[in-house]
Amino acid sequence: MNKFAEFELTKEFRDRFQLALDSRDRQFILESLEEVNPADITSLLYEFNSEESKYVLDILSIEVRSQIINDLDSDARKAFIGVYKPFELIEIINLLDSDDAADILNELPVKTSEEVLVGLDPLLKSQVIDLLRYDENVAGGIMAKELIKARDTWTVVQCIEEIRKQAEQVTKFYAVYVVDDADKLLGRVSLQQLIVTDSRTLVKDIIDDDVVAVETYKEDREVAEIMKKYDLESVPVVNVHGQLVGRITIDDVVDVITEQAEEDRQLMSGITEDVEEDDSVWKNTRARLPWLLIGIFGGMLSARFMGIFELQLAKVTAIAFFVPLIQATGGNVGIQSSSLVVQSLVNPGFVDEGLLGRLAKVFSVAVLNGLFLSIVVFAGTWVIFGNQPINVVVSIALFCVVIFASFIGTVTPLILNRLGFNPALASGPFITTTNDLLGLAIYFLTIHLLL
Amino acid sequence: MNKFAEFELTKEFRDRFQLALDSRDRQFILESLEEVNPADITSLLYEFNSEESKYVLDILSIEVRSQIINDLDSDARKAFIGVYKPFELIEIINLLDSDDAADILNELPVKTSEEVLVGLDPLLKSQVIDLLRYDENVAGGIMAKELIKARDTWTVVQCIEEIRKQAEQVTKFYAVYVVDDADKLLGRVSLQQLIVTDSRTLVKDIIDDDVVAVETYKEDREVAEIMKKYDLESVPVVNVHGQLVGRITIDDVVDVITEQAEEDRQLMSGITEDVEEDDSVWKNTRARLPWLLIGIFGGMLSARFMGIFELQLAKVTAIAFFVPLIQATGGNVGIQSSSLVVQSLVNPGFVDEGLLGRLAKVFSVAVLNGLFLSIVVFAGTWVIFGNQPINVVVSIALFCVVIFASFIGTVTPLILNRLGFNPALASGPFITTTNDLLGLAIYFLTIHLLL
Repeated sequence: MNKFAEFELTKEFRDRFQLALDSRDRQFILESLEEVNPADITSLLYEFNSEESKYVLDILSIEVRSQIINDLDSDARKAFIGVYKPFELIEIINLLDSDDAADILNELPVKTSEEVLVGLDPLLKSQVIDLLRYDENVAGGIMAKELIKARDTWTVVQCIEEIRKQAEQVTKFYAVYVVDDADKLLGRVSLQQLIVTDSRTLVKDIIDDDVVAVETYKEDREVAEIMKKYDLESVPVVNVHGQLVGRITIDDVVDVITEQAEEDRQLMSGITEDVEEDDSVWKNTRARLPWLLIGIFGGMLSARFMGIFELQLAKVTAIAFFVPLIQATGGNVGIQSSSLVVQSLVNPGFVDEGLLGRLAKVFSVAVLNGLFLSIVVFAGTWVIFGNQPINVVVSIALFCVVIFASFIGTVTPLILNRLGFNPALASGPFITTTNDLLGLAIYFLTIHLLL
Repeated sequence: MNKFAEFELTKEFRDRFQLALDSRDRQFILESLEEVNPADITSLLYEFNSEESKYVLDILSIEVRSQIINDLDSDARKAFIGVYKPFELIEIINLLDSDDAADILNELPVKTSEEVLVGLDPLLKSQVIDLLRYDENVAGGIMAKELIKARDTWTVVQCIEEIRKQAEQVTKFYAVYVVDDADKLLGRVSLQQLIVTDSRTLVKDIIDDDVVAVETYKEDREVAEIMKKYDLESVPVVNVHGQLVGRITIDDVVDVITEQAEEDRQLMSGITEDVEEDDSVWKNTRARLPWLLIGIFGGMLSARFMGIFELQLAKVTAIAFFVPLIQATGGNVGIQSSSLVVQSLVNPGFVDEGLLGRLAKVFSVAVLNGLFLSIVVFAGTWVIFGNQPINVVVSIALFCVVIFASFIGTVTPLILNRLGFNPALASGPFITTTNDLLGLAIYFLTIHLLL
């Protein structure tokens, strides 16, 4: 009962630990980690290099070692398992659930992966081979093979016998899945139900046959939506024949949801690699450059475009003053619009009114916003610069920019989504750059027509 | 076994359903919803108004009715429960878990809330009163009171007896919590463990005393982090005396994670209200206006600022050409930087190198990016506009903008976080507007010094 407070990773402790590592102080390491939750040891290891981490892990029990290697994030692990020999990996992976084992094998170089696979326990080996067939982002790729199956003709006591037999194998389960003799999923019985029911009752009398299952090919995002919607802590996975082939637990789905949010955030902020502040300067630079370059390219196009109006600009310098206003508004409107579309794509569930209905609404909102902003700008420019013809031009251009930017912001994510890209891409520098150029074009067209 | 496929809400079905509603076709409604999961009926009801929805719900069984009302999102429910009388609400809420009941009572007008509270079943009433004391965004505010307690001196069979007694009360549980005679949490025994252990075994011999618990005042985001980190499907909640007062299940935390991601997305895209595309035109307009106005205000400041350099602009019109380039880059760099800081604030776990270490790294990345972009721009302007003094000015200004925008992008979310605001606020229009102005100032300062 010593884990009420989380383990706090302080700079002092890390430095002391580094000393212990340098002097290979096995005693200190063992004692200081004895009461620590493996998940906290994992966080600690991120502070050290692969060789040092391996030294720590080799001191710990094989159970803790395999749990920590399983906890590591994929990038860290890829670097890390390079220092392990195949026979060491076999020992570690043999202790993992089939889904976690398959994840690690996926990260290994093909040759090592083959060597390790051959050495695994026969049951795990066959389970992993089955899992390796699936893409990482479908139900089959995140499911585990470990589950407890029962037949509907069994009694509760037979179920409990089966659970006892398999309890070693299956680490976490909340229900027993009931299948027929062709392995077709019939329903489930929760542990809770098993506990409170008389032991001579037949499974078929307490079965919950109103079960939501997902097919192996279902996308992980959809699986997450389904589990959220129906409030499930685990969901059985069936193949095209309706046969039970695995199960997905909510913790796997929590990872999917978190990764998805992170991916969206990165797309929205124009970062192209899965990068963290902690990564190397070079990796951080590289992850930022592509979108910055696209922005620069857009800026150069803007410059080139304004060059066409050089004479007009020389005559009425005030034209230039309002370029930032026009572009900033175009960018903001575009991002707001696309963000709402992305949100509606993530959380469907309403009847889709069709593209036309959607655009009609977006158009109404844009007209209201545009009118309001134009009036504000007209009044503002009047106050600051006095009564000048440019005021009218800017206000009218701004109105048009709001309309067009809304349109682009709405349509772009829909198109990206249709093409199979993540629509969140449209809420970032992509839309800003497009709308910067569009705004400029509208502005100078208005000038050309009215000034 | 008919729920393998999700219920698909089509436009046809909705229109047919609307007809049935208009003609009060009780028969059709009952039959068409008979096999449908309540979660799907919830989605369907979003398509109709409160009166119509109530008509549907009143036809359904009270169990389904209360589950659907519980499933509704908070905004919809607030509008919706207005058409219910207190005695109807009492009947519905009596069937809910204490945490869900407290959520609904929180949404009711004070007078109705009082009336309903008085009518609830005594046990639920006392549980709800206890829960209403907590803020919505701390562990106490998301926990449920329903849990199964056991004493360490009990045998397994006594535990199972207790579970049988309380099974009606507690809908979903994965473990029994063990307490001492002062209600202090000692540990947990999983259902799985109970099932596989001989019934005469003492609880104290199978107790897992290495349990992570959270205090009532822990923030919900932190609870989510802890449950993710330690892979928990439920976590016990203790008060300051270490006494067990409730439990939080992973489905509550999934909601927290989802809401948090949505909130971040909205802040990043400059939307100020929790709004969906489906909401009214007016609500959509209102949610967008504040940040658009701030952007407009920034644009006006830009205009005013450029006005100071009117004479210089009239002389070298090309100065104006590069304003978009400078501002776009400043905005992009700022958002990238702040986004990475926000990410590191969301997923801590590394030793914090302190502000200086962080800034040193950000500075290095900025110098590399800045150098690269400046060279590209210098080469690009040379090609497009030929060899002109402005090329050098733009390149140098761009370099400085990248450095400063990185700095602002890094520091702003840290400051916001320190002040208790959501740092994601800094990844949106806030940072773009600031960096637009900053970029302009740096650009014209460079012009002033070098041209």
